[in-house]
This record gives sequence, structure tokens and C-alpha cells, in this order.
Amino acid sequence: MKSEIIAVGSEMLTPCRQDTNSLYITEKLNEIGVAVHFKTIVGDRRKDLVNAIRTALGRIDILVLMGGLGPTEDDLTREAVAEALSLTLRRDPAQVAALHARAATWRIPMPPNNLQQADVLEGAAILPNPNGSAPGQWLDVTFAGYRKLILLLPGPPGECRPLFDGACLPRLRAIAPPRHIAKRTLRAAMIPESLADKLLAPIYTEYKDVETTILSHSGDIQLTLLCAKPDAEAAQQRVGELAGRMEEALDDWLYSSGGESAESLEQIVLYYLGLRGSTLAVAESCTGGMIAERVTRVPGASRSFLGGALVYSDALKTAFADVPPELIAQHGAVSAEVAKALADGIRLRTGATLGLGVTGIAGPAGGSEEKAVGLVYIALSDAQKNEVVEKNFRGDRDRIREYAAQQALDLIRRRLM
Amino acid sequence: MKSEIIAVGSEMLTPCRQDTNSLYITEKLNEIGVAVHFKTIVGDRRKDLVNAIRTALGRIDILVLMGGLGPTEDDLTREAVAEALSLTLRRDPAQVAALHARAATWRIPMPPNNLQQADVLEGAAILPNPNGSAPGQWLDVTFAGYRKLILLLPGPPGECRPLFDGACLPRLRAIAPPRHIAKRTLRAAMIPESLADKLLAPIYTEYKDVETTILSHSGDIQLTLLCAKPDAEAAQQRVGELAGRMEEALDDWLYSSGGESAESLEQIVLYYLGLRGSTLAVAESCTGGMIAERVTRVPGASRSFLGGALVYSDALKTAFADVPPELIAQHGAVSAEVAKALADGIRLRTGATLGLGVTGIAGPAGGSEEKAVGLVYIALSDAQKNEVVEKNFRGDRDRIREYAAQQALDLIRRRLM
Repeated sequence: MKSEIIAVGSEMLTPCRQDTNSLYITEKLNEIGVAVHFKTIVGDRRKDLVNAIRTALGRIDILVLMGGLGPTEDDLTREAVAEALSLTLRRDPAQVAALHARAATWRIPMPPNNLQQADVLEGAAILPNPNGSAPGQWLDVTFAGYRKLILLLPGPPGECRPLFDGACLPRLRAIAPPRHIAKRTLRAAMIPESLADKLLAPIYTEYKDVETTILSHSGDIQLTLLCAKPDAEAAQQRVGELAGRMEEALDDWLYSSGGESAESLEQIVLYYLGLRGSTLAVAESCTGGMIAERVTRVPGASRSFLGGALVYSDALKTAFADVPPELIAQHGAVSAEVAKALADGIRLRTGATLGLGVTGIAGPAGGSEEKAVGLVYIALSDAQKNEVVEKNFRGDRDRIREYAAQQALDLIRRRLM
Repeated sequence: MKSEIIAVGSEMLTPCRQDTNSLYITEKLNEIGVAVHFKTIVGDRRKDLVNAIRTALGRIDILVLMGGLGPTEDDLTREAVAEALSLTLRRDPAQVAALHARAATWRIPMPPNNLQQADVLEGAAILPNPNGSAPGQWLDVTFAGYRKLILLLPGPPGECRPLFDGACLPRLRAIAPPRHIAKRTLRAAMIPESLADKLLAPIYTEYKDVETTILSHSGDIQLTLLCAKPDAEAAQQRVGELAGRMEEALDDWLYSSGGESAESLEQIVLYYLGLRGSTLAVAESCTGGMIAERVTRVPGASRSFLGGALVYSDALKTAFADVPPELIAQHGAVSAEVAKALADGIRLRTGATLGLGVTGIAGPAGGSEEKAVGLVYIALSDAQKNEVVEKNFRGDRDRIREYAAQQALDLIRRRLM
């Protein structure tokens, strides 16, 4: 069965706002074997909306409309569906009562416009919305001789998604032919994109029945493998086989592999720290707290992460990580020597098993002929050794900092593995 | 003039990838007074693509197609436009030569498929693409009696955007009626969303000719005012008038106001620090480096930001910010007393003018009956005073940390103003 998602709202036709509900709905539809063939974004103009609805009904079986169900005069989805299908709208007394009750509870006056939220399309089932005042609607109609399902959902994600999951998915599952989805996610760190493509493309293009999606961002690559088949075992087998070959190709760049999702690099680092009974402390200069921020995103990080120092100024490199001022004077704050001293210093100061030191030039200013913007030194110290890597990252300040943080976490992972 | 943007590519109909080019193109189109009435996302299926193109030509004047111009058999945009309009494709000899030259330079073999990139629609102008192998195309045709402009652009953002700016915008400007756009951006911190709406909605709804967009995220509200008029001064005057009234309503929640864009809160904090000749150091516990990371995003942050400590463990609260262990034992690590001690301690240790201390329970675990998840103390100390605020943020770990960081930066801003 083919579907189309229409997101309704003029704000999503501006440069600064994008529909995100459709990603969620797409995932859920795919899981029951319903493909999304079109997504349309349309503003709060009745004529455009009617046009979009008629177009969709002419090319797909299931139409999911999101937004335009609220109380303002810009909320036109109900009226537009009625016009597109020549249906009437009736004001539902139970919904009217519910709106009055809601206004009374919240002690807010009810403008007359509010009542349009109680308007129900002829023949539609009302889908209760526990998180908002506008209910959804489910319409099962014949259009130009074909059966069409039309779902009207509220726009706010906190209303749209639970309503879709709770009221629409079970109904759709009963209609869609049974399909089983097998899913696998692989993640790899710091592998050059062109190399990843060269290694992986010859493999996954062999599997036409598995949909492979590759997302890559600042040194992190995430591969999602998806296979839908009537038989659950067959789907699982195909995804497992492809995942196995890709894992082998990715070698030790691979850092996690899971079913529904895969752990993030910081989760993996914390996992290994826990496994080894080790602790970590960081001394960050150019990354300015980004590494610590990523690590502490993970609930329970405090079991293995002690903290550390933000050694942005040279004075603090000395005060918090005991880097000798002479060392900075001799080699410069951005140097392998200072990175190593930061790693050692923060480890000894905090009593952590592992100490990380990062120093670099994030730009846009601060570069020189011998030390260009993008030069970063990352050192990792433990009782046995103190290893430093030198990198020249390209790009702007944000990208350089993100790559440096990713490289640092990957260095810790490789040490612990 | 009305436009539609069609993004072509099956990957944008998956749950994990979204078209972003359209936001850029929308902004540029709006600036020359061309409204975007529809956005359509369609996969690499010829039938769907032809359907989407015909639908668009039936409802708008300018059609921007992005993607599907590459060398693979999935790249079908040229063929689909030809089919939709019953036009022929001719293989352009100059483009064929350019493709051969490109392959030779890169020392890569040229698969026969590659040459489809040299196919040009009957009557189309070729738009050179300096950043890729597939050129764009510009088609000025009559469809069902009306003049239609059809732009074929490559999908990769690094090719699509420069090509649009360089080759399409000047042509469109020559066609579109002259319009001048006035723009203003206002930003405010930590104002409750419902209060912002109550204060602002009665004002901006009066200005039907100014488009007001409100984006709000974790205690940060950004308002964009856009007005397009044939007369530049008139547009400027309307936006200026509305901005003035909104600034007044936002009172001291407002932290920045600018033309094209407005400064971020961290930029404003650094601006005031520079103005006062002050320096800042931070001691972050539950925010785990997020405040420092935000401040150091800004180029040149090192002029006023010294750094600080990531005092995730209690031991480091003492080691790096001299918080007496007895104080932690008596009041708990999450307390007003410890936040104040962190702020004082980090200020004295680093010699900064201002010291910031943050401690809280980000969750999901770690809460208790008296101290719930979301409880955060933020203290700001200078030579004169040490002020602490207590907050109970709702939501998940990410949201609590983001609100705490925003509140902390806002506290610094208010102290410096």
C-alpha cells in the first residue's frame, strides 16, 4: 500500500521551520510495510490545501494529514477535506461538551472559534487526543472508485505522535498485509567517508531487498539496514548476513552494532570504562567542554567520569593540570608536548585511571604558517603510557571542534578495547 | 509569483534523512518576493516524479527541482521533465567533452551511464556547475497556456546552493517584480512560552503585512519579522515599528535584536564581558561542560573566558573549586550552599572577575523526595556579591541540562547589563 504525508502549516514553508513529524510517521508506516511515496508541505491556504488533498487521493491509498486542526481561523484541514471530497461537517455534541469542560478546568474563556474543533467529517471516526483539545479523525472512503484511508492528525509532535501510535497504527495493522521488519544499526568512528563508501558500496548494493541508509557527521558514520518480508526469519537472516559482512569490512572502525539502535560513541566509552573499572578525567582547551558534555549526556556517567578542567587560558593549563609554564613558552600551547602534559597532569591531579588532554586551533583566527587553523593535538595518558595524536582537521570552527571531540573519544575507545 | 520546490530522492522519504536545501532556496526566493506555496518530496520513481511535476505545473509559476541529475540509473529528473512536458532530450557535445575531460583529470574510468548527465532538455539553457559533474538546466516554457519557469538543480547542497545563487537568482530577479525585504530578528531568554505568546500575539497579529515566525527551544525564543514591499523604506518602517513594540513588551527578557540575524546568548555574554573588561570562569557539575562549550563556540571567546572546572565528582568540587568537604556532607552536593561555594571557589582559583557554579540533578536517576530530578542551583559570584537561583526544570536529562545552561548564561547577562 502506498501512502502520502501532507504537513499543513505556513510556518513550514518558511526558511526556519521544518516538518519533523513526518520522519516519525514514516518510520512507523514502513514498519508495517506501508511505503511513503510522497511528502507534501502546504500552507494555511484553503485552495492550496484542497488541491494537495485531491492530488494525493489521485495517486496513493493512505493519506496522513498533520496539522491545521486547531481553533484559529488558519486551521482549515477539516474544511479542506470536506471540500475535496464533497462531504459535510457536523458539530459533534460530545466534543462540544468536552471543549467546554476543558475550558472550565483551565479557567480560560472559550472563544467561539474554539468550537470548530468539534466539527467531524461525515462518516469519520473520532480519534481521542489525550494531549490536546483537537481530536484526530479517521476516514475510510471511496474516491474515484478506489478505497482511500484519510487520517487527520494534530500538528504538535506531542499530540500527533501518541495519537498516531495509539489510535491509527492498530487500525492500519489490521488492514495492511502482514510484514515483518528486521533492523540493524552499525556505527563507526573516524573512518574517511570515501573509504567507507569504497569498502561498503560493493557489499550492500548486492542486497537489493535490504534498504541501507548511511548518515555521516563529523567523523561518525551510522548505517541502518532495514529488510521487510512476510516471513520474520527470512528478513532477520538477510539483515544478519549483510550486517556481518559490513562489520568485517569496517574492522576496528566499527564501535557499535545493535538491533533497533546502536550505542553512541560516548556510551561505548563509558561501557568500556565500567568494564575495566577505570575512570576518566579530561583537560580540554580548544574543544571547550564538548567532550565532557558528550560523556555526561549519558545517564550514570558519574560512575566512571570524574570531571576535569577547562584549560582555555594558558594560566589554567598550569593551575589545573600542572603544565610547566616553560613547556608552554618553549613549544607553544598548541603542541604535542603540552597535550601530553595536560593528559598526565589531569590524570595525576584527579586520580583518574585515564587522563585526556586536548589542545588545538579551532579558528577562524589564531593560525600561523607553521601551525594552521585545524591543527589539534590529543593525548591520552594512563599509568603505562602517554600517547599523542596530531590531526589537521579541515572546515570551520564548529567542524574542527566536533572532529576533535570525536577523535578524542575514539582514542579512549581504542585504548580500552 | 508562486513557486513549488520538489526535492527528488528516495532517501528523503526514509525516517532518517530530510531535505534541507529547500530551506535555503525558500529564503532566497522569499527575498525576491517569490512565495513558496508547496514543497513536495518524491522518490526516485519515474511515474511518481512525472506525476509530481505535472501537479506542480498545474498550480504554480516557478518550479524548482532539486536532485536526480547524477549519473546513476536512479537519476531520473531530466527524463521525467521531458515526459511531463513532451519534450525531447538531446545529448550536448560540449557537455560530453567536459565529462570526458573530468574523468581524465580524476583518472577514473567513465561508465556509459555517466553520459546521461550531458542530456539537455529541448529549449533549456545549461547552467554550469563548478562543483560537480551534472550541470543545472533552466527552462522557460508554456504549459497549458501559461508561462512556467522550471529549474533543474543538482541535489548535493555544495552544488545546489552555489548554482542557485550564481545562475538562477539573477535570472529570477530580472523576471520577478521588484520587492524589497525588511528583516528583523529578536531573541529573548527564559521567558515562559505562554507568557511570550500572551504578550506578543496581540501585537503582531495587528501587522498582517509582516510575517512573524517564532522559534522556541529550551528557554530561548527567537522571533523573525519579515516584510516585503515594493518600497524599501515602507517595508523597513513597518518592521521597525512592530519590532519596537515587541522589544518593549519583552522588556529585559530581550537580549538581542538585529537585522539579518541576532546574536546568540553566548555572544551577548561575551560582548558584555568585553565591554566591562571582565573575565569569566565556570565550575560545572550537572551541565558537564555545556556552558563552556556554548561560550567557546564563539570565535575569540578566549579574550574573556578563562576556562574552569568540570566538577562532576565531589572530590573535584573540593580539588578544583575549594568547596569544603564538610559543606558537601552537610547540605549535599546539590544545594544552594555548594553552588555558591563553587562560584566563589572557581573565581578565586582562576582570578576571574566572575565565577559561575552549577550543580543539579539531571536525572533520570539520582532524585529523592526532597530533591527531585530537575532541581538545579546556579550561583554567580563577583567581588561584591554571590547570588544563587534555585530552579526546578521539567523534562528529560537533555532538556534539564539545556535549561540549566541557558539559565546560567542569562544570569551572567543580567549581572553584566
